Amino acid sequence: MKIAILGYGTVGRGVDRIVKGLDDIEVTRILELPDRCEGPRMTSDYTKIVDDPQIEAVLECMGGLEPAHTFIMQALQAGKSVVTSNKAVVAAYFDEFARTADEHGASLLIEATCGGGIPWIASIEKVRRIDEVSCLSGIMNGTTNFIVDAMIKNGADFAETLARAQELGYAEADPSADIDGIDVKNKTRIAVGVAFDTACVEDIPVTGIRTITKADLDLFAAHGRTVKLLGRAVQWEGRYAASVEPVALPSRSLEANVPSNFNIVSLEGATVGPLKFYGQGAGSLPTGNAMVQDVIDLAAGRRPKYDFSRGLAYDPALLAGDYVLRTAMPMPQGAEPYDQGAWLVRDIDPVAARALFDDALAADPTSFMAHVPQED
Amino acid sequence: MKIAILGYGTVGRGVDRIVKGLDDIEVTRILELPDRCEGPRMTSDYTKIVDDPQIEAVLECMGGLEPAHTFIMQALQAGKSVVTSNKAVVAAYFDEFARTADEHGASLLIEATCGGGIPWIASIEKVRRIDEVSCLSGIMNGTTNFIVDAMIKNGADFAETLARAQELGYAEADPSADIDGIDVKNKTRIAVGVAFDTACVEDIPVTGIRTITKADLDLFAAHGRTVKLLGRAVQWEGRYAASVEPVALPSRSLEANVPSNFNIVSLEGATVGPLKFYGQGAGSLPTGNAMVQDVIDLAAGRRPKYDFSRGLAYDPALLAGDYVLRTAMPMPQGAEPYDQGAWLVRDIDPVAARALFDDALAADPTSFMAHVPQED
Repeated sequence: MKIAILGYGTVGRGVDRIVKGLDDIEVTRILELPDRCEGPRMTSDYTKIVDDPQIEAVLECMGGLEPAHTFIMQALQAGKSVVTSNKAVVAAYFDEFARTADEHGASLLIEATCGGGIPWIASIEKVRRIDEVSCLSGIMNGTTNFIVDAMIKNGADFAETLARAQELGYAEADPSADIDGIDVKNKTRIAVGVAFDTACVEDIPVTGIRTITKADLDLFAAHGRTVKLLGRAVQWEGRYAASVEPVALPSRSLEANVPSNFNIVSLEGATVGPLKFYGQGAGSLPTGNAMVQDVIDLAAGRRPKYDFSRGLAYDPALLAGDYVLRTAMPMPQGAEPYDQGAWLVRDIDPVAARALFDDALAADPTSFMAHVPQED
Repeated sequence: MKIAILGYGTVGRGVDRIVKGLDDIEVTRILELPDRCEGPRMTSDYTKIVDDPQIEAVLECMGGLEPAHTFIMQALQAGKSVVTSNKAVVAAYFDEFARTADEHGASLLIEATCGGGIPWIASIEKVRRIDEVSCLSGIMNGTTNFIVDAMIKNGADFAETLARAQELGYAEADPSADIDGIDVKNKTRIAVGVAFDTACVEDIPVTGIRTITKADLDLFAAHGRTVKLLGRAVQWEGRYAASVEPVALPSRSLEANVPSNFNIVSLEGATVGPLKFYGQGAGSLPTGNAMVQDVIDLAAGRRPKYDFSRGLAYDPALLAGDYVLRTAMPMPQGAEPYDQGAWLVRDIDPVAARALFDDALAADPTSFMAHVPQED
């Protein structure tokens, strides 16, 4: 199978390196900016790819919304299958891409958008052949897991640890997509689409870890808990909910023990029970591996269909639970003391929790909040 | 697709229940003992199944070596694909089954032999499309994990906890296949076959948890370690090794935090990196789910090929490491004190470790030994 790569950055190079070791796949074209084009495969003219009848699949690893969105649409409309690692563009246009692929006999393959090298999307689809997925959750961002893990292990504070993550290449110069939860939001919305056959609403509650302190981690550790940034989603009787927020998990849970920049993702199926998948959630070779696995699936005839006509209703009450808020703001209504400067607010949904956190941030910009699930 | 189930016990009933919810698969025959046959689908005459041209796949969930081995061979020779949950028979006859399937245009599907509902075998095969698997390991037996976990959480001793596991149905009346590591040995040998394209030797070192005490768990906990029964295998430069033994893992590792009767299995691939898969390793519906997933794969054209012609050489030195032996026997040669009544023996291979443990058991039948990997 002849394929083209859009964008020869970290992921594109990973794909190219992995494909060189395989017999049946060949990268015949690579789209790059004019001043980066080297050698006969590279071009800055997308028509050389989208109009080439020999190219069966386009591997989009540019990132960002445009021109990725336009290029993906043009490829699908030309009947070429698209394999992408771009969570932002898929989260924003999943429904449009899926419909366009279907209309033009092309396929959309998105394993690399969530969980890097972890076979997460394909595993959800496999489970769905037999079971409904009742819930999913996970540590889907390696940067924030690295930061929290390093803060705990080194006793360091947030700013210092973020700077170290940036030095190591685990965090971007502008870290907001990671630390404010936008990246996890994109991945959670995509996973909801695959697991629940529903185009997830854009406006789910999202809270990151920007204000977490070493003292917060120590406080939760004293309660036998470890904080992780989790994307979560659940469906029940025609409704669904999704959220992204710090969660103070029991310290003996699997999630609490995920080290460094690794990811773990979980689902629950009616007959298979709970399944968890762990691995490298980012990086040139793991993410490249996920894209090449999608190409091999495509060559083997796998044609995922995403159909969002089910129309589940969004209801954040499905994710209602307890929250701990550390703030200098006066005690919120209905709250009870949790520990030094922190309040426990019971049984609120994540939208109400986010509104409460906004009030706290307005009064004390250093406030921190985490969901505190009940222990099993 | 029309299928037959051999054996209507825990797993067979799970398969039947799951298939009832699917459109394209039908259980037309069930083989049972004459006095257990009820209804028109059940028969005690295997020729009614193996000679029925409409039956495409035979799902063997009887367990044990015979008549399972004979029935599987007859089905494959009749060109019928075989899906099995029987780790004992696959571990013993994997090479013969794989060759016979290949010769008769049939397929052998074995997801349910290892890790119950965890998509482990299919995941190894998927990784192998791109990467060599350099090593694999895992908690592959829910009974022993339940026992060790309950001993730690309840402060109870082995005999009492085993009795409770038997009451709950997590352990058999004769628990030796579980607690002596035979079940894990079978699963490890099967996983080696799939991951390394090699028929694993029968005689790998196997040590179970029969002599573990609450005091042993406390001793390792004081060193920041938790004991789990692990199957492990590694390949390197044309050689491979495999073993089954208690391993004292760092208490903050994922494996150390696997609760109750759950399983976790891990592998490492060159480009994908480390992957871990967690779920229910046994039970009617999870194991039934794995068998039905195999049937759906079969219907979709997945035809796994197991080829053991590669001929890796068995070399236990690849798994050499440190061991802690708790025994009343005098200090073994080359050992150094570890803690109260326990010795640390450095850098021996698992065959030498097993021989040392046999010496210790001869002198003190209550002795316990665990591999102690270096911390990352």
